[in-house]
This record gives sequence, structure tokens and C-alpha cells, in this order.
Amino acid sequence: MTISPDLGLYLVTDRELCHGRPVVQIVEAALRGGVSCVQLREKSIPIGAFLEVARSIKAILAPRGVPLIINDRVDVALAAGADGVHLGQNDMSYPDARRVLGPGAIIGLSIESMEQALEAEEWDVDYLGVSPVFATPTKPEAKTAWGLDGLRRLRRCSGHVLIAIGGINPTNAAQVLEAGADGLAVVSAICSAPDPEAASRRLREAVDRHRSKKLTS
Amino acid sequence: MTISPDLGLYLVTDRELCHGRPVVQIVEAALRGGVSCVQLREKSIPIGAFLEVARSIKAILAPRGVPLIINDRVDVALAAGADGVHLGQNDMSYPDARRVLGPGAIIGLSIESMEQALEAEEWDVDYLGVSPVFATPTKPEAKTAWGLDGLRRLRRCSGHVLIAIGGINPTNAAQVLEAGADGLAVVSAICSAPDPEAASRRLREAVDRHRSKKLTS
Repeated sequence: MTISPDLGLYLVTDRELCHGRPVVQIVEAALRGGVSCVQLREKSIPIGAFLEVARSIKAILAPRGVPLIINDRVDVALAAGADGVHLGQNDMSYPDARRVLGPGAIIGLSIESMEQALEAEEWDVDYLGVSPVFATPTKPEAKTAWGLDGLRRLRRCSGHVLIAIGGINPTNAAQVLEAGADGLAVVSAICSAPDPEAASRRLREAVDRHRSKKLTS
Repeated sequence: MTISPDLGLYLVTDRELCHGRPVVQIVEAALRGGVSCVQLREKSIPIGAFLEVARSIKAILAPRGVPLIINDRVDVALAAGADGVHLGQNDMSYPDARRVLGPGAIIGLSIESMEQALEAEEWDVDYLGVSPVFATPTKPEAKTAWGLDGLRRLRRCSGHVLIAIGGINPTNAAQVLEAGADGLAVVSAICSAPDPEAASRRLREAVDRHRSKKLTS
């Protein structure tokens, strides 16, 4: 199933993991490689700088119809004219964010346990970030990884769009999609890649291959 | 000059300085003592808890017509239905916050230098927080104190409502008002007071005395 907006290959930025290359440059390369959604995550820069990067990226994404999602900060999303926010379990609650952003915003929510997934079933979230699907050094504080079995179980219980994140790379991408993910979210596999465009393309191919297979099966 | 809304005695909360007493309890006492505006400042608790406290305080202030101002977080202000935000120089810019919050919101801005004050003259901010008027242990990272002379100079240059903050107590309150402040903002003088109601009342008396004197002079 192709979902709308296309969250099939979802880049989550991480300034440190870009290894000195500007975030905007990584985003441009990732777009050329086929990324269909970008989440800007900034945890260590002042809000003014965050907003400035958000606007730069919005200007790149908007003409291509690629949504910009802001991590955590609902106010930055509003000020930057972003398409939505991604909420962690310690960020503003989903109902509050929805009330502030309105029905048209894309709002995603990280879930790290089945309990959180079941709570989210009550809400009209646009997607769940299944986090982490594999253990990853990017989020050392994260809970136990879902694994492919956990993702399959979740797929049976949840009616939401599921975006898997954590340790995804071209090698395991097909398995993650077969286990029930509607899309792949990646951080280091693109941000830290020597060639972010090529890295994005390999992941995009995995998503497209899986979609073709589903259409013809 | 009485300003509208009345920012004459402006409480800025600080969880740590309440010495274990709930912030809501300090706010209630301060209201009984004559505080006419409350800024909720939370720097160390998760956003959900921040929003919960904001709503509790909003419920106390609204029936009394006392405005609730949220420090820094425009999204929390929106979600809590607060009356406005107070921005530091490292928070969202004034024009961005105004765009997001709309013309009806109360938006204040901390200024720590004449340069920042002059920049703010271009904007329709509701007040400037003159910070710090005296050196204070609450904000050790703050710039050089304005002092009474600095406040007088600022009063001559600025058309904005000036709310002085930093080291204000019942002993120096009259001098600060005579130097040109339209209102007094206090943190520890109320939050850390053994009797926050009595402390607020003493400061309120200074504000009211100054206003009567101006009316009859």
C-alpha cells in the first residue's frame, strides 16, 4: 500500500552525525536519492537557528511536495510553516499538539512499547515511529528494540501507518518492510554516509521493490 | 501611568526557588498579596508537566483577570490558552512569536543591553523586561546590571512599557519605580519568601504608593 503523504523513505536529520557537512546539504543529496519525507531534529542549537534551518529546508522541500516534519517543537513547526511534527513520549502530548496544529498537520508519534502503541490506537495520529526496530548507537537511551518479531506483532495490533526507525540499512531494509513497516526512517544510514545520495537511492530501491512485489503478489 | 493589562507587580516563577513548596501554592499566595501578572518559567521539567502546571495556574488566574505569561515556549502558551509569552534573547524572535500567537497575545522581551532595547523599538512588544536591574544570584549568566542610572537612560530612549527585574525587593522597589519602571518583576523576593503573600503585599504597596504619588504630583 502506498501511503499518502509518501512516508516510504523518511530521513531524520542529526547535525552531529552529518560529520561537519551542513544539514541542508545532506537533505538535498537525500532528496536526489529518493527520500520522500524529512524530519528536522535539532536538540543542541538555539531556537532561532533551528527555525532558520527549518525555513531553508522547507524552501527546498516545498517545490518537490516533500513534507517537512519538525521534531518535538510545535512552535517551530508553526513559525516555519512546516507540514507537521514528530513527537516523542516526553514531548507535548498528541491531543495537545493536534489541538494547536489543527487537523491538516502531519503528526507522528514515537512508540517504544506495545502499551504506548495501544494508547495511540485511540488517536488519529498520521503514523507511528516504531523505535527502535534494531538497537542503535544513535539513541543509546532508547528502550528494548522491537526486532522484526515485535514489528510483526505490532502490525497485527495497530491500524496506524508504521514507520520503522533504528539501525535500518540497505541490508536489512527488505526484511523490515516484509515484517510490516509502511516506511523506513533512517538517521545515520544517510546522514553519516560518505555519499548520502547513493545511500538514499539504495534504501529507496528497497522500498520500491517491496511495493512492486506487493502490487504484483 | 497605570498600564493595561496591569503589569505593575509581575511574578516570575522559579520551581527551585520555591524551596519545595508547589509553584501553584506560591502563585495563589502571591495573588492574595496583589500580584497582577504571572509568568510561568519552567526550565527543568518535561513539556507535559509544564503544560499541566500552566493549565492549573491559568484556572486560578483567569477568574481574577490576571494574565498568564509563559516563559519561552510559544507552543505551551498556545496549548495552555495562556495570555502570552515572555521571550529571552535566545528564544524565538519577537516577529516570529507575534506571527504565531497573533495580535491579541501579550508578548514581552528581555533586554540586557541598550542595543537590544533599540532593536525592540521597531517592534510592537507589549513590554520590555529590563534585566537585570540589579545583580542577582537567580541569573548568574546575565549581562551587566542596568542599575538605576541605566534604567533612567532607558526610560528616556524607549517608548515601551518597562518591567524591571533582578534583585528587586521592598527596600529598593520605590527607587526602581522612580527611575522609570512601569512595573516590578520579581522571582526570589516572592518565590523564596517565608510568607509569599506578605512579601507580595509589601511590593504591591510600593507600586500603589508610587502610582498615587504620580497621580497627585
